[in-house]
Amino acid sequence: MPHLYDFSATDGSDRDLLGGKGAGLARMTSLGLPVPPGFTITTDVCRAAMLAGEIPGDLWPEVDAAVARLEEATGRTFGSGPVPLLLSVRSGAKFSMPGMMDTVLNLGINDDVVKAMIDWSGDAHFGWDAYRRFVQMYGDVVLGVDESLFQEVLTELRAARGVTDDSELTSEDLETATRRFREIVERECPGRLPDDAMEQLRGAVTAVFLSWNTKRAIEYRRINAIPDDLGTAANVQMMVFGDLGDDSGTGVCFTRDPSTGEKVIYGDYLPRAQGEDVVSGTRNTLTLDQLAELHPECHRQLIEIMDGLEAHYRDMCDIEFTIEKDTLYILQTRAGKRTAAAAVKMAVGMVREGLIDEKTAVTRVEPDSLEQLHRPRVAAAVKRSSAMANGVAASPGAATGAVVFSSDEAVEEAQRGTKVILVRPETTPDDIHGMAAALGILTSQGGKTSHAAVVARGMGKPAVTGAGELLVDVNAGIASSSTADIHRGDVITIDGTTGAVYKGEIELVPPEVPAELTELLEWADGLRRLGVRANADTAEDAALARSRGAEGIGLARTEHMFMGERLSIVQRVILSTDPDERLKALDDLERQQIADFESLLEAMDGLPVVVRLLDPPLHEFLPSRFELEHEMLRRVRAGRPIDDLQVMSDQVARWEEDNPMLGLRGVRLGLILTELYRMQARAATTALTHRLQSGGDPRLEIMIPLVSAAEELIRMREMIEEEVRQATSGSGVELDIPIGTMIELPRAALTAGEIATVADFFSFGTNDLTQMTYGLSRDDAEGKFLRQYLEQGIFASDPFQTLDRAGVGRLVRVATREGREANEKLVVGLCGEHGGDPASIYFVHDLGLDYVSCSPPRVEGARLAAAQAALEATRTDV
Amino acid sequence: MPHLYDFSATDGSDRDLLGGKGAGLARMTSLGLPVPPGFTITTDVCRAAMLAGEIPGDLWPEVDAAVARLEEATGRTFGSGPVPLLLSVRSGAKFSMPGMMDTVLNLGINDDVVKAMIDWSGDAHFGWDAYRRFVQMYGDVVLGVDESLFQEVLTELRAARGVTDDSELTSEDLETATRRFREIVERECPGRLPDDAMEQLRGAVTAVFLSWNTKRAIEYRRINAIPDDLGTAANVQMMVFGDLGDDSGTGVCFTRDPSTGEKVIYGDYLPRAQGEDVVSGTRNTLTLDQLAELHPECHRQLIEIMDGLEAHYRDMCDIEFTIEKDTLYILQTRAGKRTAAAAVKMAVGMVREGLIDEKTAVTRVEPDSLEQLHRPRVAAAVKRSSAMANGVAASPGAATGAVVFSSDEAVEEAQRGTKVILVRPETTPDDIHGMAAALGILTSQGGKTSHAAVVARGMGKPAVTGAGELLVDVNAGIASSSTADIHRGDVITIDGTTGAVYKGEIELVPPEVPAELTELLEWADGLRRLGVRANADTAEDAALARSRGAEGIGLARTEHMFMGERLSIVQRVILSTDPDERLKALDDLERQQIADFESLLEAMDGLPVVVRLLDPPLHEFLPSRFELEHEMLRRVRAGRPIDDLQVMSDQVARWEEDNPMLGLRGVRLGLILTELYRMQARAATTALTHRLQSGGDPRLEIMIPLVSAAEELIRMREMIEEEVRQATSGSGVELDIPIGTMIELPRAALTAGEIATVADFFSFGTNDLTQMTYGLSRDDAEGKFLRQYLEQGIFASDPFQTLDRAGVGRLVRVATREGREANEKLVVGLCGEHGGDPASIYFVHDLGLDYVSCSPPRVEGARLAAAQAALEATRTDV
Repeated sequence: MPHLYDFSATDGSDRDLLGGKGAGLARMTSLGLPVPPGFTITTDVCRAAMLAGEIPGDLWPEVDAAVARLEEATGRTFGSGPVPLLLSVRSGAKFSMPGMMDTVLNLGINDDVVKAMIDWSGDAHFGWDAYRRFVQMYGDVVLGVDESLFQEVLTELRAARGVTDDSELTSEDLETATRRFREIVERECPGRLPDDAMEQLRGAVTAVFLSWNTKRAIEYRRINAIPDDLGTAANVQMMVFGDLGDDSGTGVCFTRDPSTGEKVIYGDYLPRAQGEDVVSGTRNTLTLDQLAELHPECHRQLIEIMDGLEAHYRDMCDIEFTIEKDTLYILQTRAGKRTAAAAVKMAVGMVREGLIDEKTAVTRVEPDSLEQLHRPRVAAAVKRSSAMANGVAASPGAATGAVVFSSDEAVEEAQRGTKVILVRPETTPDDIHGMAAALGILTSQGGKTSHAAVVARGMGKPAVTGAGELLVDVNAGIASSSTADIHRGDVITIDGTTGAVYKGEIELVPPEVPAELTELLEWADGLRRLGVRANADTAEDAALARSRGAEGIGLARTEHMFMGERLSIVQRVILSTDPDERLKALDDLERQQIADFESLLEAMDGLPVVVRLLDPPLHEFLPSRFELEHEMLRRVRAGRPIDDLQVMSDQVARWEEDNPMLGLRGVRLGLILTELYRMQARAATTALTHRLQSGGDPRLEIMIPLVSAAEELIRMREMIEEEVRQATSGSGVELDIPIGTMIELPRAALTAGEIATVADFFSFGTNDLTQMTYGLSRDDAEGKFLRQYLEQGIFASDPFQTLDRAGVGRLVRVATREGREANEKLVVGLCGEHGGDPASIYFVHDLGLDYVSCSPPRVEGARLAAAQAALEATRTDV
Repeated sequence: MPHLYDFSATDGSDRDLLGGKGAGLARMTSLGLPVPPGFTITTDVCRAAMLAGEIPGDLWPEVDAAVARLEEATGRTFGSGPVPLLLSVRSGAKFSMPGMMDTVLNLGINDDVVKAMIDWSGDAHFGWDAYRRFVQMYGDVVLGVDESLFQEVLTELRAARGVTDDSELTSEDLETATRRFREIVERECPGRLPDDAMEQLRGAVTAVFLSWNTKRAIEYRRINAIPDDLGTAANVQMMVFGDLGDDSGTGVCFTRDPSTGEKVIYGDYLPRAQGEDVVSGTRNTLTLDQLAELHPECHRQLIEIMDGLEAHYRDMCDIEFTIEKDTLYILQTRAGKRTAAAAVKMAVGMVREGLIDEKTAVTRVEPDSLEQLHRPRVAAAVKRSSAMANGVAASPGAATGAVVFSSDEAVEEAQRGTKVILVRPETTPDDIHGMAAALGILTSQGGKTSHAAVVARGMGKPAVTGAGELLVDVNAGIASSSTADIHRGDVITIDGTTGAVYKGEIELVPPEVPAELTELLEWADGLRRLGVRANADTAEDAALARSRGAEGIGLARTEHMFMGERLSIVQRVILSTDPDERLKALDDLERQQIADFESLLEAMDGLPVVVRLLDPPLHEFLPSRFELEHEMLRRVRAGRPIDDLQVMSDQVARWEEDNPMLGLRGVRLGLILTELYRMQARAATTALTHRLQSGGDPRLEIMIPLVSAAEELIRMREMIEEEVRQATSGSGVELDIPIGTMIELPRAALTAGEIATVADFFSFGTNDLTQMTYGLSRDDAEGKFLRQYLEQGIFASDPFQTLDRAGVGRLVRVATREGREANEKLVVGLCGEHGGDPASIYFVHDLGLDYVSCSPPRVEGARLAAAQAALEATRTDV
């Protein structure tokens, strides 16, 4: 087997051997594109070197021969004039490891060659710049010289010349820099900077291979689960220069418009420039039409290539090109990034054009991106640097409104017609009414899965969380950052797509849902096997979910119905010592619950509605003892009496728990304080009966949370069935209400076989299941250490966003299998946050779940992801 | 196959067919014992009846024949005089289900037969009492008549006669009762009370079989995992009467002394009495010597039987007998209950006598009971009714001392030489020093696995927890129950073996460890495969554990070393904003930790010492914000400044968590705030080095708590190894310190294969693992609902006491298997509370764990349980 292949020698299909970059270069070459010539040293060589501890000696003769072929093909000479051949060496593993491994450019230069280059180009600046870059890079990458030593020299030269950018240095400066760089390298590594071009090449190739085993590369592979024994390839390629005078330049072009998706080519060109200059945007670029005037032949050739590439890849291509002395070179082609709207438009458009089929179209859009389509956004013209603070992009979209610092205030102001943004240190379930009244939410604490973030996403409202620069003083009514203060009533704009917070009103772009979306989602529905329901607690949410294509409600959280103005009734139920008052409060609550359930069943008429009975511990409906004590302190200082608060505090103490997440909640509450669950069962039954009497087609299901043992469900089932019987006795009506359970405790998953015999359905509550499996409270972890864990790579991804397959996923797998074995009629769904996450959807599709349930704004994305899941072959990750 | 077997027809070996009781009766009969004759209708009949919905018709001819054989054998007649045969029908399933199924006595009586009985016995009271009992029982059990109707009649008759006990009614009263009972039955179930003896028998047999499927029986089986399809047998037996005149009586005897274990027979006899009269203790019983005077022949026969039974069962027997008209009948024989000391003495004694072998001896002692041997106890003479309050028997043994209401006070008083009992609503980790200083602990809240209970058991101190009658007002220094108040300094006695709390000093019996214990435990050590280590945090605990046979320390909890007087240093480390002060506090702590570790390693020289790095969240070392606010309120009312507390409160807020159990603790703390873990690793290394220099044989191991992902352990391992290298660099010493992890999160168990590749050992922390698997905080659950769950049978047993096999146990199994597959050198232990629980020890023995680690007082029991586990065949439960 040869150790290397010229780009022109293969069709680039063997990524294992050539690595990703090498395969791409070979593929473009085989398509006849004007790729700068070169060759790929295979991953076999890297593997052999790892085993032997050195590069195989018989590689070098092959390299010599390959370089000779390059010289032949290009008419340039490696290591001398008249037209010197300069080479680059780049790593390229099978899987992309961006920035992890080494690159060396401008190989083949020395004191003689630089003169030949200056002669050939007529440009001393160009020549010396190439030379000083080579010395700097070779010193750093191959010889390990401290990079800051070179930077010191450049800093000094810029200061002397009074400029801020290296490009503004003169050719004399660059010559000086080169000399001093050589001195540094000679001092640090005496005798190790070769003048011989072939020696330079060998050093660079060796360094690139060795970089496979640097600490950071190993770390990266560990985190990304890339096997250590794959090895990397090394690509040796002729350098081309876009800054080689006025008949050179560099550009980027797209085969369609990446912002709108329209079928028009689009591109930027910058004469006398290198690639970075286009990207950095410091100089004004030319259009492709202007390029046609400068280089008509190159332009014609480029247009032809663009057509060819789109036809070949059957996708919109993003192409990097360089013109060197009026000769076009293609450096890279890849599928171009695009906005969500453009992606939808292109995917459907290409099907209409016959370029791709419907299945392919469905894989062309990021499910996560669909949510953006329905939200106004900050106009592209707005500078990010004008933000007064930055936080976590917790829920996409932008909103402008007047600041309020409490939920009650939000409701008041909203009722007066004011558009408000709710600003809090963090939110709690008691803020639901305020969040519902606000246009957007801003918090100084919490991350992407904090309460504020989760609820905001559920409501489809923009949210920025964890804006740590902001000091929010709710009592004083002020939020301050280092640059500005916001007072109650001040107008701000938050951008939940980027995490930016702006003072004042900022130009927003209205949502523009492409007409093609409906068609794309219909194709997706035809392909998917996994059902998609929504988590919704109100008729409005249910209607929104239905309009986005939800096939029912997978989770209606009844505790959300206990908040806001009903809180005082709930508190009477919990705290009252007078049985009559207690009973009356319970009756009030029952009447309201009946209305809640009726409106949900009506909005989802004909589709299943899974009502989960009360889940949280009771003290979530009570003030904390700390707050009460705090209030007492205030009152005492103001000389006011505190007896009522003292009584309250004693009552509250009874309900306080050290770890409420692990306390008296869910089915435990239902079994110990039966009256609340009985009331809910009655209310649901009554609502169902009313809907039936109104001629509707209500499909109520009742879900019991936090079951850890089959016996709990057995008892609870008996209790509910008793209530249903009593509520319908004498009416002649026979109701069929499926009763199921959340699987949200590890023990429920581990004993699912037993639980399934007494359950009509399972719904994985993966939020709690993740918390318990990791022993990790989402709320506590977000603020305290989860971000550090992610930044340091201790956790590869946030387990609250993407289902952890090895641990939590294993429980889901076991429970699904054993539950189905025990009860073949068992319906199995998932209703955690993960229900809207594409990677998690792929996973649970593979496990054979029946449906996922997610927040209404994520329903469309879930439909798309479910279809992608069904198209297994097209997925990169299973 | 016949439907029934006479007791004399088999040897009683087929328990499946005959049930437990039937098999026992047949066995005694086959041994030649004078058992009242009878027969057993097999479980096959019950199973057939369940399938068919009725008793097989061909049963009754067999019953007729069997009754005829009984008449033949006894010379009595069923259903007539001159000597009437009365029969009993008792259920008897394979597994005992006490009180769950039905019994009918005195079958074969009617208006004629009662006259014959009176003639035969010459005792009208006897005759009518038997008759009224029959009508009452048949009416209740067979016909389902409301039992309270009969009680009303008896109440009326007692009132008329002015007596309180039925036995004081005259024969005329009993005759009246019988008549009125018959009227009640006739009214409720007309024509269904048969006069015919055979009809009575058929009715009773049918009722007994039907009682297999009563709701409570089904419930009981579900909770105790007894299969529903086993069915019960029905035993039909001749009635004998100990109250049939002065030459009759009833008694109980033991083949050895059940209190001391001495080889002397022991018994009680009561003339003219039924079995209940002996047990109730309302009349003074006679000794066996006195029996010899009354019934010399029966006595001789009984002694012979006792010898024979002990030789047959090779165990101390507890025998129930009745003498009817000078004829001895044996009613029941079983292995006698005995005290822990007696059990040990007998087991070793019987080996010496050649009656049993060592393996059998090891199975004869309850592992749990050994702990009692080392504790003083309340003298048997003390009446339980004199207790002022009763709580949970949380840690055995008794203690007398003066009451203190705070841990600081406990330490102060103890230093003055006062013996104190610490009384608290509940204890927290901050009470460790107070608990250590007290002789015993009493709390008004919490159960067997509350903090107070767990720590007290760990310390080997008596504790009564959850004495809910007591209202403990710590600030007022008073604890009051409905009957008495206890003030600070009052002397009380607590009995942790029974849960009783007495005012004043109560007579205690000193511990008396039988000399035979050492021998028994040596046999156990020779048999067991499972190692036994101890959980110990101090040199004293370690020494105690070693004296009880511990083979190392399986868990040294370093956080316990952070409490008491060191707390202020720890608080400085956490809260100080001055880096120098912080560093100084950390240095102080390090010096003290070195001493801690040295003393542990010295006490366990030559044996492994597993040091667990800091586990709890930092705010456990800080006051709560509620407490601070409360103190501020007090100060404001007293007109004192609060600024210092305000500062403290703000600092504390930073560390507060909603669910600390699921928060920043264990390895997370170690990775985020590295300095504490680094300090501990340094201190452990230094201690190890010191011990080596002193010529010791220290065997330090370091354990990382709360790992959820292999990556956490990888990072932490690197950090610790770095500290070890630095601490020993230049010394030439190479330390080999195994580093392992707790498996205490479900995810750790589910990914054990991966974790095992970077761990030297696993130790299952089953306390936390149980909490996370169930989603159940032990502390919160104990007080709020766990007891109700257990009482209602929702949980069959407390998962914090006995390892839950289906859920938590499954994780332990999976992790052990996959951990060992990934790393064959992996050492696997268990160090939760379950490490001292026999049922859990049996389970983990089967899983092949290497060792368990438990509190020092439970070490002996664990050694014994481990031996029993190894003797699989002798265990009833696997």
